[in-house]
Amino acid sequence: MKNKIAVIGAGLIDFGVLYHKSPEMMMEEAYINALQSVDNGIDPHEIQAAWLGTLRGRFTGVTLAQPTGLFKIPVSRVENACATGNDAFRNACFAIAAGVYDNAIIIGYEKMHDEKGGLIKLAGIKDIWMRRARTMPSFFGLRGTRHMHQYGSTKEDFALISVKNRHNGALYPHAHFRKEVTIEQVLKAPIISWPLGLFDCCPVTDGAAAVIVCKAELAKKYTDTPVFVGGSGLSVDSWQLGEDEALASFPASKDASRQAYRMAGLEPKDIDVGEIHDCFSVTEVINYEDLGFCEKGQGHKLIREGVTTLEGEKPMNPSGGLLAKGHPIGATGVAQIAEIFEQLRGQAGKIQVADVNVGMTHNIGVGRDNTGSVGCVHILTR
Amino acid sequence: MKNKIAVIGAGLIDFGVLYHKSPEMMMEEAYINALQSVDNGIDPHEIQAAWLGTLRGRFTGVTLAQPTGLFKIPVSRVENACATGNDAFRNACFAIAAGVYDNAIIIGYEKMHDEKGGLIKLAGIKDIWMRRARTMPSFFGLRGTRHMHQYGSTKEDFALISVKNRHNGALYPHAHFRKEVTIEQVLKAPIISWPLGLFDCCPVTDGAAAVIVCKAELAKKYTDTPVFVGGSGLSVDSWQLGEDEALASFPASKDASRQAYRMAGLEPKDIDVGEIHDCFSVTEVINYEDLGFCEKGQGHKLIREGVTTLEGEKPMNPSGGLLAKGHPIGATGVAQIAEIFEQLRGQAGKIQVADVNVGMTHNIGVGRDNTGSVGCVHILTR
Repeated sequence: MKNKIAVIGAGLIDFGVLYHKSPEMMMEEAYINALQSVDNGIDPHEIQAAWLGTLRGRFTGVTLAQPTGLFKIPVSRVENACATGNDAFRNACFAIAAGVYDNAIIIGYEKMHDEKGGLIKLAGIKDIWMRRARTMPSFFGLRGTRHMHQYGSTKEDFALISVKNRHNGALYPHAHFRKEVTIEQVLKAPIISWPLGLFDCCPVTDGAAAVIVCKAELAKKYTDTPVFVGGSGLSVDSWQLGEDEALASFPASKDASRQAYRMAGLEPKDIDVGEIHDCFSVTEVINYEDLGFCEKGQGHKLIREGVTTLEGEKPMNPSGGLLAKGHPIGATGVAQIAEIFEQLRGQAGKIQVADVNVGMTHNIGVGRDNTGSVGCVHILTR
Repeated sequence: MKNKIAVIGAGLIDFGVLYHKSPEMMMEEAYINALQSVDNGIDPHEIQAAWLGTLRGRFTGVTLAQPTGLFKIPVSRVENACATGNDAFRNACFAIAAGVYDNAIIIGYEKMHDEKGGLIKLAGIKDIWMRRARTMPSFFGLRGTRHMHQYGSTKEDFALISVKNRHNGALYPHAHFRKEVTIEQVLKAPIISWPLGLFDCCPVTDGAAAVIVCKAELAKKYTDTPVFVGGSGLSVDSWQLGEDEALASFPASKDASRQAYRMAGLEPKDIDVGEIHDCFSVTEVINYEDLGFCEKGQGHKLIREGVTTLEGEKPMNPSGGLLAKGHPIGATGVAQIAEIFEQLRGQAGKIQVADVNVGMTHNIGVGRDNTGSVGCVHILTR
């Protein structure tokens, strides 16, 4: 599949608390932004297939076709917990690489706030695990204390992730939170689940994003600066497999990144920039290790040493990541692809990273019953 | 993609009201049945990727990995209303045809009855359209009266579909209803939504099914009688496009079957047997037209003349279809693939159709808000 698929357009809507926008408005806006981003233009009637990524139940191809007018073509829907967006993109890539379609659009979307109190609240009421306090903050908080115990990281290390990502988000027009926070603010914030305070947790955010792909050999028709899909990986894992290390690691991220590196013929050192799954500050530290950017147990050193800041050697989450940009679940992975697309084309504005040739996107998803995780990774190249 | 993918194994569980089986038990049983159906055996560790098809919200790759042990591999989840099973199969086929995996398993599953009153009941409570009586029977009943008005079909014609499919289901071990009905019983049954009586409506059924596919060139390792994927199609449509004909037609079925015929290089006359979406009796009549088995408005003549009975020229739904076998949504399309696989291998027992070389599977899905439909079609060949 390597280099058979080109990304030729991408668009986001401004993420935030969007009570005033219907799902249809959000999907349509992302769709139009993606269409308009194609340098040489694309006629909507040229689009041959579509994939919708959303967590919300009972959404189908029709859900996406209705606001976009993408009727009379195949529209599929993929869900894979918080990895939904990257997995929808992955399934579309397979269809292009199989030669079945010349091009396709992937739209990720989530309305986390709605008239019923929002997706997160509903999840909390209905889910047997959530009712027993196995909420996401407690789940990831446990990973934090384990990492601190086993590898000597500190609450301050995690706080530095939040400070970095809020700094980046302040520079990124689509981010939900566009205000910096100081390390003192992060450390003094109310504790949600130790060691995670308020600013260590991503917000509840509505958003949508869209990406247009085509067969690599057709890319030049649409743009002089396409971006190519070098590698792709997905894996699932269980906490019940008896791997102690999994308390401070996400084996599915490791597996998925290994698959993507192998397909791309690249190594962790080749990644110039990443949009990686920082649902909580500690998650980003663990990602550094799982994705191979450092040895196991050394993740916190990368942030201590400033390696992953916007000006560092290997900037991570220049968009502000989930912590500042927000995490509208189905949109998150698609937005990451859009952001890396802009980075590799030198169009990322105030968050542009210098000299980037290879970028990574990465999601972790936690199984509904908290018994395992999903990891999904893509490697994009100029 | 034509003939690049082989089906090498398939298994179902007995469909029915399965209060006594957990989702995990259902998925595991279908998985084991599929593994055991592979003639030369397959080691579970050989399986490289998986797709889960289910309508139920918030299910992820982990949901399927947990009961099957399919950890450390990519597990994706697809939903597309009642076309979920066929669309999950389609996405898996893309990945095999793209050369990314040597093989994959697709598991479709639905527990329609559960402790909360079941999926259908929940849908009825929550959905604004359902609350306004735009239920599935009323939606499909409208198609029935329109077909009668426009083309001269009768309630008796629709009843003949139910009689045929209940007859077939009585011969099929996995069917939910294994008891024949007479045309008098169908005609005298309580009306649910005119012209649809009780026996014109598919039951609420729990079930699971699994299918194993591989690259065509590897098929002989597993079996001497693989079945090949000749064509695949998916389309979505809106009722708001102003096509009057759509009241007695499902344009998405037409589009999807055209795509599949084109890919396979086949025509409707080449189809020897079909498992097609008879959620209501009238739907099967309309399918005959949409899938090209007869001219528009002539569907009821095929059943009047016995063309689609088990002994007819073009048997449809030898398994009993959704009307007798049941319609556990995510499982339905995957079960259809399993059944056509068995037909093409001559292993369908009492429902075996003579001289079959080409089979079709077909689902219709209705969008959540009743504003459009999904159609998904596969053509399988010996």
